[in-house]
Amino acid sequence: MQVLSLTSPGTEQLEADEAMVLAHEANDFLADSLKNYPTRFAGFSALPTATPDKAAKELERMVRQHGFKGAVINGHNRGRYLDDRFFWPILECAQALNLPIYLHPTQPPRPVIEASYAGFSPIVMEMLSGAGWGWHIETAIHVLHLVLRGVFDQYPRLQIVIGHMGEGLPFMLQRLDVMPMAMTKLNRPISAYLRENVHYTFSGFNFTPTFLNLLLQVGADRIMFSADYPYASMEEARRFLDHLPVSSADRERIAHENAESLLGISRETTT
Amino acid sequence: MQVLSLTSPGTEQLEADEAMVLAHEANDFLADSLKNYPTRFAGFSALPTATPDKAAKELERMVRQHGFKGAVINGHNRGRYLDDRFFWPILECAQALNLPIYLHPTQPPRPVIEASYAGFSPIVMEMLSGAGWGWHIETAIHVLHLVLRGVFDQYPRLQIVIGHMGEGLPFMLQRLDVMPMAMTKLNRPISAYLRENVHYTFSGFNFTPTFLNLLLQVGADRIMFSADYPYASMEEARRFLDHLPVSSADRERIAHENAESLLGISRETTT
Repeated sequence: MQVLSLTSPGTEQLEADEAMVLAHEANDFLADSLKNYPTRFAGFSALPTATPDKAAKELERMVRQHGFKGAVINGHNRGRYLDDRFFWPILECAQALNLPIYLHPTQPPRPVIEASYAGFSPIVMEMLSGAGWGWHIETAIHVLHLVLRGVFDQYPRLQIVIGHMGEGLPFMLQRLDVMPMAMTKLNRPISAYLRENVHYTFSGFNFTPTFLNLLLQVGADRIMFSADYPYASMEEARRFLDHLPVSSADRERIAHENAESLLGISRETTT
Repeated sequence: MQVLSLTSPGTEQLEADEAMVLAHEANDFLADSLKNYPTRFAGFSALPTATPDKAAKELERMVRQHGFKGAVINGHNRGRYLDDRFFWPILECAQALNLPIYLHPTQPPRPVIEASYAGFSPIVMEMLSGAGWGWHIETAIHVLHLVLRGVFDQYPRLQIVIGHMGEGLPFMLQRLDVMPMAMTKLNRPISAYLRENVHYTFSGFNFTPTFLNLLLQVGADRIMFSADYPYASMEEARRFLDHLPVSSADRERIAHENAESLLGISRETTT
């Protein structure tokens, strides 16, 4: 089974009314497209994050009426991260539904682009602040906001999914604990949240050294195959999966079992 | 042999005149402290980067008169990165002397802190934008500036040293090549500069998964032991070195041979 969404370029930067209409239409279009293939495809909802109560209702609607498996949120909403209590109704709803939120990258806020990524050609600036580097750091920072604001102390069963082998977080995972619980006032070490409240997918990062870093930090139970199709090659992702330096049991977990468990997909009903 | 510097908190954020005086005094103090232990210790120069011609002269003075082995620069100068042509006299001098520049982390520019790291307690903000995370990303971004501006096309023998197992760059190394040479207008792929113009040290990142990521991306010839003493434990760093999953030949390279080669240290004269 594949899980699809129609959220790019995202509703997060739109006016609230416009975002609501667009999310609703995109979700209905996706549900309609999938309804003839219920054992083959499932959906993640687009959400109008600027209106969190409505976003939570939309998430619930798509789950209850169309069997969607969670939501995709494309990063910050005009510079505000999901750790802002304003957005917590969405997080509360996701925990209540026992379904994850996929945190998709977006460009960093404009002041970050200007301070960190400016002065190159337009295409280099776009890629350096985007798919080449900045996207990933931005998403990692977003996850750290969720952790450090205590989102996972408030919603301890909430699961966030991030792509790109963990967006740099595995490289820094042990270092992050230089901020101890006495400093953060959290219930657990920062590394514990990254091992217990986050799942990780490939998203075209078919890089063995990067995968090993992730594997050795979070274990095979937290890693899920994905291909980033159509942006990246399904064939390459499949070859990468086939050659991962893991046991055959862990390969099965990574290939589908972890996703089935997280998304509540029954194997009997999938093809 | 150990290589020391007296640059923290750095002269990069001072007025130019003040920075020149402070760097000069710090370097002389260090040279004086080391002169009785020429086979045991060596120095890296502090540099007044706000006045690049004077900084280059200071670097040359410390090398020629006191046998210093390079320089430490603590990141951006009030938001300007070393890729700015204003600073190139320093880089040109380092290449001419055949000695490296150690790029030490610093806090990101203020707009980045406000956009990405604000809203937590003062100590969490400081650590999140500093030694817990932001330092490392900031330093990686600095290196990417050097690469993308063509610094290493202009100075192909220039070597930069970065700490903390590569400041996140190894995790992203293959991804960075989504910016191909046709886009960057550089002579080599981005990953090539990270493998040929950068050396990497531990700096207290005694984390095996992170080390393996670095090792598998750049190879044992580019990695150098360091302990970040007195901030981190020399004993722990030594134990980590002893247990690295590498051959004994590679352990020797990492322990001292790579540093001797990079810094022009003759083994006969060291203890």
